[in-house]
This record gives sequence, structure tokens and C-alpha cells, in this order.
Amino acid sequence: MSCRPLLVILALVAVAQNSPLAAETHRYIPKPDELKYTFATTAPVLRLKPGDVLETWTENALGDHLQQPGDTLPADFRPNPNTGPFFIEGAEPGDTLAVRLIKIEPAKDFAVGIAGPGFGALTQTPYTPMLDEPIPERTWFYRIDRRARTVEFAAGDSDFKIKLSLRPFLGCLAVAPAMAEARSTIVPEFFGGNMDTPEVRVGSTVYFPVNVPGALLYLGDGHAAQGEGEIAGTAAEVAMNVTLQVDVLKGWRISTPRLEDDTYLMAVGSYRPLEDAMRIASRELIAWLEADYGLSALDAYELLSVAMESNISQLVDPNYTVLVKIRKKYLPDPSSTTP
Amino acid sequence: MSCRPLLVILALVAVAQNSPLAAETHRYIPKPDELKYTFATTAPVLRLKPGDVLETWTENALGDHLQQPGDTLPADFRPNPNTGPFFIEGAEPGDTLAVRLIKIEPAKDFAVGIAGPGFGALTQTPYTPMLDEPIPERTWFYRIDRRARTVEFAAGDSDFKIKLSLRPFLGCLAVAPAMAEARSTIVPEFFGGNMDTPEVRVGSTVYFPVNVPGALLYLGDGHAAQGEGEIAGTAAEVAMNVTLQVDVLKGWRISTPRLEDDTYLMAVGSYRPLEDAMRIASRELIAWLEADYGLSALDAYELLSVAMESNISQLVDPNYTVLVKIRKKYLPDPSSTTP
Amino acid sequence: MSCRPLLVILALVAVAQNSPLAAETHRYIPKPDELKYTFATTAPVLRLKPGDVLETWTENALGDHLQQPGDTLPADFRPNPNTGPFFIEGAEPGDTLAVRLIKIEPAKDFAVGIAGPGFGALTQTPYTPMLDEPIPERTWFYRIDRRARTVEFAAGDSDFKIKLSLRPFLGCLAVAPAMAEARSTIVPEFFGGNMDTPEVRVGSTVYFPVNVPGALLYLGDGHAAQGEGEIAGTAAEVAMNVTLQVDVLKGWRISTPRLEDDTYLMAVGSYRPLEDAMRIASRELIAWLEADYGLSALDAYELLSVAMESNISQLVDPNYTVLVKIRKKYLPDPSSTTP
Amino acid sequence: MSCRPLLVILALVAVAQNSPLAAETHRYIPKPDELKYTFATTAPVLRLKPGDVLETWTENALGDHLQQPGDTLPADFRPNPNTGPFFIEGAEPGDTLAVRLIKIEPAKDFAVGIAGPGFGALTQTPYTPMLDEPIPERTWFYRIDRRARTVEFAAGDSDFKIKLSLRPFLGCLAVAPAMAEARSTIVPEFFGGNMDTPEVRVGSTVYFPVNVPGALLYLGDGHAAQGEGEIAGTAAEVAMNVTLQVDVLKGWRISTPRLEDDTYLMAVGSYRPLEDAMRIASRELIAWLEADYGLSALDAYELLSVAMESNISQLVDPNYTVLVKIRKKYLPDPSSTTP
Repeated sequence: MSCRPLLVILALVAVAQNSPLAAETHRYIPKPDELKYTFATTAPVLRLKPGDVLETWTENALGDHLQQPGDTLPADFRPNPNTGPFFIEGAEPGDTLAVRLIKIEPAKDFAVGIAGPGFGALTQTPYTPMLDEPIPERTWFYRIDRRARTVEFAAGDSDFKIKLSLRPFLGCLAVAPAMAEARSTIVPEFFGGNMDTPEVRVGSTVYFPVNVPGALLYLGDGHAAQGEGEIAGTAAEVAMNVTLQVDVLKGWRISTPRLEDDTYLMAVGSYRPLEDAMRIASRELIAWLEADYGLSALDAYELLSVAMESNISQLVDPNYTVLVKIRKKYLPDPSSTTP
Repeated sequence: MSCRPLLVILALVAVAQNSPLAAETHRYIPKPDELKYTFATTAPVLRLKPGDVLETWTENALGDHLQQPGDTLPADFRPNPNTGPFFIEGAEPGDTLAVRLIKIEPAKDFAVGIAGPGFGALTQTPYTPMLDEPIPERTWFYRIDRRARTVEFAAGDSDFKIKLSLRPFLGCLAVAPAMAEARSTIVPEFFGGNMDTPEVRVGSTVYFPVNVPGALLYLGDGHAAQGEGEIAGTAAEVAMNVTLQVDVLKGWRISTPRLEDDTYLMAVGSYRPLEDAMRIASRELIAWLEADYGLSALDAYELLSVAMESNISQLVDPNYTVLVKIRKKYLPDPSSTTP
Repeated sequence: MSCRPLLVILALVAVAQNSPLAAETHRYIPKPDELKYTFATTAPVLRLKPGDVLETWTENALGDHLQQPGDTLPADFRPNPNTGPFFIEGAEPGDTLAVRLIKIEPAKDFAVGIAGPGFGALTQTPYTPMLDEPIPERTWFYRIDRRARTVEFAAGDSDFKIKLSLRPFLGCLAVAPAMAEARSTIVPEFFGGNMDTPEVRVGSTVYFPVNVPGALLYLGDGHAAQGEGEIAGTAAEVAMNVTLQVDVLKGWRISTPRLEDDTYLMAVGSYRPLEDAMRIASRELIAWLEADYGLSALDAYELLSVAMESNISQLVDPNYTVLVKIRKKYLPDPSSTTP
Repeated sequence: MSCRPLLVILALVAVAQNSPLAAETHRYIPKPDELKYTFATTAPVLRLKPGDVLETWTENALGDHLQQPGDTLPADFRPNPNTGPFFIEGAEPGDTLAVRLIKIEPAKDFAVGIAGPGFGALTQTPYTPMLDEPIPERTWFYRIDRRARTVEFAAGDSDFKIKLSLRPFLGCLAVAPAMAEARSTIVPEFFGGNMDTPEVRVGSTVYFPVNVPGALLYLGDGHAAQGEGEIAGTAAEVAMNVTLQVDVLKGWRISTPRLEDDTYLMAVGSYRPLEDAMRIASRELIAWLEADYGLSALDAYELLSVAMESNISQLVDPNYTVLVKIRKKYLPDPSSTTP
């Protein structure tokens, strides 16, 4: 069976706008004790129907602990509180959940970054332990100007300040894992999770393999701006106001998150070593071109070899994340070539 | 000692245009038996002075063997014939060689791609051997339209054809390795080499650590277009007409290739696993910001964590290659902040 | 605070044999629906006190499905059913659980091995996907002779048969993971789990970091014999009758499983890439020598550099596993050098 | 064509002892300026015939610089001086060179180990750069007692001393690389080189793929004792007196070094990441069992999965090294099963 995501999206918008019964808009703001620290199969906080819109809020990945220079994280600090899970009616294992991102806006006018011992790409971690003396802990506060669409970096060791583009996205977007696993919200994997992929932004639709009934959607870890690699271990971390719309693609089977926007088809791989993350993402994009765009696997392999784009989303979480993408304008028309 | 690449480039252009003595333009077209298959410390084919311009030509990475469908590579085929080496006067170990890319234009109106057993990111190789049955060998011919600036991909298993943007660059650009090594021209490493980095294109200046007197510059492996990852193992391979200008930055010490264009500072890491290539590139970019832009190492780490861009240039050579980059507009003014 | 595992073991034996109140012997045979497929924080099947002995049974990792040539695994097959969890009284986060292995004996007179698509070190997997055609599925039956202590391998494509030494051990031995995670029983990590380390055998005591109250001990995946690497993805898989004794080392803090037998101190690292598993194991062994044997970190580093032994336990699970070890006779007397 | 190494070895001994013409014994002690720092295709220092015996000497990997506590390495220090190369008559690409190790004995009564910034498994290196503060440089002197067969480790930060077993071997044993490469003598790869594999000891025969006419044999980097992993970056380094015998196995084609002693068949893989080194070694051992022992590839895969042994020889050189081995007593009789 074949499925055409692009058309699905259009249908999804249509459904949301026109259908007399279908699309409802839900609003859910988590109380502190409703925040989640694992991606797991657990009781949902709300049930959504395909086509429904959700307005919600995500806490800062560092919680509310860092308000000004000098603040520190408490000893029992747990990162990446997530909002959810949301049960999507009709989603069953073997289906795909589509999440269209409509709004991701900072809920505060400052963001925070932190670097220090135990996390980050250029210091030893529990996963890559060494005998060296680790870097010291340091914090940076970013001023967000929502109207000017900027995030201001201020150096700690000099007077240098610079306004970066405000490019908000969600570091965490996930469904419940397969095999009855529960994973810390710092983990990205085949179920999505802490992918820290800047393309998880407004204008993108993110697809997830459904592992459990209802899919169980989670979101969190908003970033006002993040480099590809997130090498110090955090981005400009900030709470977010989020609006998204969900849909279920019955019987469209995928292995790892895929994304789509007006310009690109994308796939995300999260594993270690980083070359395996790249293999997972590339193999998934080939599978997509093969199933829905009528290319043979070898033709897709070659086309991506000359036209794919890639980035290393992050090199700091328990699994590493790679995103690959191909411009839609370089692909066959899905409706004409898919049998 | 500190050095300002941007100013150097301007000076370099100035020297080339105005100086009464300095800049000469050399022309060198290699004879077949002058092509090189190792990056090594060997007799140069030509000597250049800092500021000199070189007009030259590079052979197709697949040689001249694949002219039309059905052609195959000979049994004793050696990939990536390189042009050079060029001895740059005044370049000594501890210096940096700057190579400004002025022209890289396809010398033919078709390019070739090949996939098959033994190479590529998604098939077993001598470095990642398996017991699976490898993919079959396949060849694709690309039509280049230099006026329209397109490269046409034509599927082998369907009628699909698509014009991609012509984005010519050099897969190989290298100096002689350190420690008296000679490396196959399929290898990228700290000396540059077969980096397959699309940013090695017109408008970029590429910096190399000088390991031997004269640096010994090599170039080859022109690509009319290549995806980030080059996953099938080749790009759209074609001979190139190349014009470049060289300069020597005395005492400016770097560890792995850096690049610069109007928009970005960049660094390239080539090693395995891929996360180490990423660490090498990121660490080098931090070193650059620290030495020449007045940022502390931790401030540079954080700034890159929120603003760096990255790609996986290739996942198919004996070492893998990552490129990272930061927009110059996000950096301090080098002249005001460097002591 | 310092702790001397060797003395603890002796005490443990003493407690089990002499104490009027302490040591009880428990017997628990799981019913099929009591088998576990995740290492998780869940209701225990039994509570043990420090010093208690447990007599139990573990199911074959392949279940009971493969009884004779031609049998196949069902579509909804789940590997590595585990027995447990067992709640150990007094075990709290920050403590260490000690598990002394007294008996691990095959419960059947044959074992099974299986190779095929999707798992194994030399075929593509979901974690290292490729475009190659995977190996076919194949099964091998091993005859176990418990009296002669042999396991007979019989080739599938020739008449060759050979008796290997019977070396039974537990592929899985685990406590509940940290951070409220639940991990599939195919996963090894800092909590132990599917380490597939042949040293988890009679005569060894295995130490685990306690992550949750009661530690929650799991065991399963008995192997009649296994090569170091377990390259095809399974060993000679067989149900086991197991006797073990537990103890709690209050305040002895470790990061990843350690083992001890009459001859060796050992540490296990499970992660990807394999070099990180090796780093984790080596760093842990240094920490042990530093904390309990009075060596400085650098002296321990050097001593291990000239005297450590290592093996790759497995290269086939979601994380890879390395075991490192040092002969006790090469170490200072713990009682004299630890302050 | 098939070839039986075991028989070859016996023949080799026979030739050396009985043949009226064949076996000569050569003696070669390199002068300081004859030491080599690359494995390369270069002029040989001596020519040997198949069956010939060579008595020679190898310099300490650290040169002669460290004679007593307080000595330091010079700024222009180059590690791993090698002896050779030796041209073996009749060896052609596609053949295999066999090197039987007869004597490897320390030429001095002390050995040296060194740890410090830039090398070692648990400190940042140029290949795995970080921002952490590296460990300081430290040196250890080992007293060798050749009669008692011991090497004494003496801690630097306490009074602890311990006698380890003297287990001398060659860290470097190599042939010239393929593809006209020249590699630093710190590098292990398909041509052997700086494998740091303790099994390269007396009693072993080491097989190398011949890449150039004459094979060009190199040796060096003697270790009085080394742990599996060599985690601090050096072993107990000492000059060695070496006796070996060479032979050429015409048309026996191998891909990476193999070893054989009375008990085991072995294969060595050297690459990064470490899992690829393991794959290379395991795949090679399967190829050996398939070609010369009559097992199908899948039967060999399964047999190794239950009976292979492995170690991580080193995790500190530019490529990492794994050795795998299988007991000969577990294999078919090569003469009866090979067609």
C-alpha cells in the first residue's frame, strides 16, 4: 500500500478548516507534577482525534532553576521535562503519526545555555570517560527579542555580544518507544525523542512510527536557537508556547522519524556511532523514495549521492542525531510514478 | 603571533592585481604519466610563489574509462588521479598554505557516477566487511549544461530525469602529509586530500597546515554535483579546468583544513568514527575563534553550540569527513578584539 | 568510605553458612506469564535479604520455540525472557548489589543457535542498515553432555561435528535501570543486562550499581557456550537452573558492573561505539584500583597498560560489551594500602 | 587454490633444518641512520630467501632517550624506529608472507613506559580532541629479570612494586602497504604494522598479504609486557634481540594479518571505529575456515559465535587493533575436508 504525505497534509489542513465534525482545538497546560521525564507507555493527559489541533506549553529543559547569573541547578535536577503524552485516536502499531507544527514561540524573553562536566561533545562524559580534568561549569543568558526575531549571545569572558536569528524549535518530539521500553527524555532514538534537530520547527510535519495504541505524543525542550551539533550540550533553552495538529496515516509504515516541509523530504537517524545514525537516516530516505516516488533503491541511492543534504543535529545526547534531506523539486511526481 | 585571514585574502587579491613584481600566472596541464595516485613528498611539477595564479586541469576520478553506458573500469583501475604537486616557495612546516579557488569548470559535457560492491555508505566495504550479498555494480551518466548551470540525473530503472544545479568543486585538494607519509589519493585526513567537501568551490579559500618545505599542493576529483554524504561512493565525476591562487601565511599554525568565504569561517575534520571527525572540526573552529577573534575557548564553545552549521561531507572514504561553519557576521571584529 | 569486596565475599559465605537468623534459601520458578521482557522498576516476584540464597530457573532466550530442525520462531516472538525481578532488602541508590553465582547448569540436553537477517555482527541490522541482501536465516542444534561437560556443534552444510567445552553462564544479569528507564532485555548498559559476558559464570561475583530501592535483580539468557563477540548474534542458548546468593554493599558506589573471582578483578562496559565500551570498562577498573587498592589514577592507568586483559564479550546487541580484567596477584594488598 | 598453513610451517622447519641449499641464517644489526620511521616501498637493507633465518635487533620505541627518571624525550622525537625492510625473494602481490618468530628477547635489563598528553585511550588525542585539561606526562621504569622471567612495575605515587610475567613480543611487524602508501610506524592496518598484539610472540607464525615485490618486512617496538588495550599508550618498551624465519605462500591470498601457533588460528583487524576492527578480524577468520577447513561461511560464522576468543590489542594508535582466535582442536582436519 502506498500513501502520499503531501496530499495528506493538504487534506489535513482542509479537514481542520472545513469539516463540520472533525477538527477540534484542544488546550492543555501541564501542571508541574504532570511533567514527564521518560518517553513511556503511560496514562495520557488528553485524547486527540486525527485532524485535531493542540495548543500547549513546554517547560524549559533546565526547568525554572536558572533565572539569573549565579543561579545553579539543584542536586536532584532532572533535565528535559516533557508535556504529554497525548493519545491519538485510531493510531495503532504499524501506522504513522503525523505532527504538523503550527506555532513554536518562546514563552519568556530570555533563554539559558549551560556547559560543564559530564555532557557536551568536547568534554568527557559517562559514555566517553577519560582521565582528563573536565571543563568547569558555565552559564550563559540570552536575551530574546520576539519582535525583532533575535536571540542575543553575550560572552562570559569579554564584552562581546551578538544578535543571532531567533529560530525556535522543539528539541524533543516523541512517541512512546517500542518493546515496552521507557526512555529518559534526554534520549533520541527510532521513536524520535531528544533529537535536537532544528528542522523540528514551524512549517515542518514530523512523522513517527506508531509503537503502541494511541501513539502517545510527547513534546518539550524548546530551543530559541541551536547550532547543528549542539556541541556544548545545550542550546538557547526556553519554555515554549506550541500549537500543532495531528493526523494518523493508516498502514504507512516507517522505521525512524521523517519530516517534510514545503521544500524538503527529510529523515532522522539517532544512534551511535555517528556513522550508524547517518546510515539509518540515509537508508530511511531511500526507502521513502522507493515506496512513494517510484525510484528503484539503487536509483534513489545514486540520486541522494549527488543531491542529498545533511547535518549533524547533535553530538551530545546518549544517541547522536543526523538529519538528511532531499529537495522535493528533484523528485518524481509522487502521484504519477507510484503505481 | 596572530594572523587575520580575511585581511590576508584582500591582500592576496591586491597583490595579484597590482604588484609590479609579484603575481605571475602559470599554466600546467598534466600528461597522463604525470598524474599522481598518492599524496606524498615527491618532486614537484612546478614551483609557485605566494600570490601566483595557477591555471590547470584535473582528470576525472574514474579516469577516462567510462564514456558511455556499458563501459567498465579496467582490472588495474586506480581512482582519483591528482594533478601536482606544486611547490610553494617560502612555505615551511608551521606555516599555513592558502589556496583561493577562482575557477572550477567542467572540462566535459557529461559526468559519471558509479555504485557497486566494496565502496559506499550502505554496502559492505573492506573497512566494514559483512557476510551479506553486496549490491551490484551500476553506472549513471549525467548530462552537463554549462550555460544553464545544470547536471541532469537519469534513472537507470525508470524514465525519470531531473536537472540538478551545477555546483562544481574539487573532491581532492591536499598538501603532502606529515611524518613522511604517502597516502592514497582516496584518503582524506589532516592534510586535506579526498575530503569530498562541496565547500571546496569557487569563492572559498582553503587553508592547509604545511608539513614539508614547499607544502606540495595537489588537486583532483572534480565533482559537477555532490550530495552531502556522497553515500553511493561517487558524485557526478568529471574532469575540471581549474584556476587558483596560492599564498603562504607565515607562522599561522593550524591542525586540519580550514575554509573561508564571504559568509563563513569553516573547519574540516576527516577521521573515523564520524564523531571524531566532528570533534576534530569543531575543536579546530574553536581554536580559530580563540586565536584570531578574541573569544575564550568556553565562549567559543557556547557560541558554536547555538550558531554553528554542519554537514557530513562524505561517509565513503577511508576516513569520513565533516565540515562545520559559523557565519562571520556572528563573530567579533578580528581587528578590534585580537590583542 | 572504602569497602573491600574480597572480605565482603568471605563474610557473605560465612553469613550464609553460620548465622542463626540471616541466610535463608528461597526457591522460585517463574510461570510463563511471569517472565519479563524489560529491565524495569516493577513489582518484584520475591524479596531477598542480604546473604540469602536463591534457587531459580531461566528460560531459553529463544523461548521454547525451537525444539528440532525445521522449527521457526513465531511472528510475535520476543527474545530474552528474564526471571525476576527480586527485591533485595536494604539496597538503596548509591549502594552496590553483589550477586555470587553458585550454580548455572543447563536444564535441557540440547541448546540452539540461530543466525539470520537483522541481527549479528556481520550482517546489516536496524542499527547499521545497508542496501545489501542479508544472509538467510539458519538454525543449529547443540547436544549438551552434562557429565562429559561438552556441547556439540554440528555443521549445517557438511558432516563436521565437534565437541566444545561446556561453559555455562548467564547472558543476562541486571538490576533496574536508573532514571526510571525500562529497557528491553536485549539491551546491556550501565545496569548490566544483556552483557553476554562469559565471565558471568559460577565462581564469579557480579557487582551492580543500585538505581532503585531493592535493586530489582533480573536474570536470564543462559548460554551453554559462547564465543567472545557472539558474532552470529546468539550463543548455544538453553534454559538454566541457577543458584545465587545476594549481598548489599552499603555506600560502595560503582558506575558500571564489576566482577570478581578468585583470580581477577573485572569491569564491564556496554555502549557504542565499541571504543567507548572499552573506555567505560577501563575507566571503571582504574576507579576500583584507586578507591580500594591505594593506587593513584596514573599508576593504575600504567599498571593496566602493561597487565590488563580484555575481551569483546559481544558485538551484536543494541550496545556492545567489553570486559577488562587484572589479576589480583598484581595488585597491592587492599587491607594494607587503603587508608 | 588451497593452501595449508600448518603443513607449510612444518615444511618451513624442515627446510630450515635439512635442505642442503635452502636455509641460510643472516645477521643484521641496523645502524642508527638505517632505522625506519615509515612502512614504505623503499630500498631493502637485506634480501632473504624463503626458509632463511634472520637474526636481528630492534630499537626501543622511545629510542634511547629515557635512561633514568628525569630524562625526557627530545622535541623532534619520532617514535617506533623499525628495523628493515627485508626483501623476501619470490614474494609477489597476491602471495602471503609467513614470518615464524623464533626468539624475541629484551636487549636491556630495563624497560620504560610513558603516559601523557596527546596519546592514550583515556586522554584526548589529535584524533579525539576535547577542551578538557589533559593528564600530565609521567614516566615509569621497569626492571627486567630475564632469568626469573619477570618485569617489575614500580608505582610513581606510592611504594608499591610488583613483578609481572615477562612476555616479550613485537609491537610492530609489517610489510609495505598497498597502493604505494607510506605509513608512519605508529600505524597498524591491513599491512600489519603497529598492531601491538601480544600474540606476535615466539611460537607464533604471522602471515601478511604481500603488496609489493619482495613484501618488504619491517619489525620493531619490542614490549617486555603489555596489557590488552595498551591503554596508557605505551607498554614496557625495550630494545629486542630477534630471530625469525620467513617463507612465501604462493597464491595464498589473505586480506589482513593472520597468526597461527600450536593452539590457535588467529586474525587481526586494525581500523576505526573499534567495531570495524572486530568485523575485519572476524570476517577474515571466517574466510580462513571457509577456504582451508571446508566449512561453509554460515557454519564458520556460527562456530565462531560459540567458540571464538577475542581481545582488544590496543586502543591507542591511529587505528585500533582487535585479535580473534579459534582453537585448532575445534576445527575440521584441513587435509580431509578441503577439496
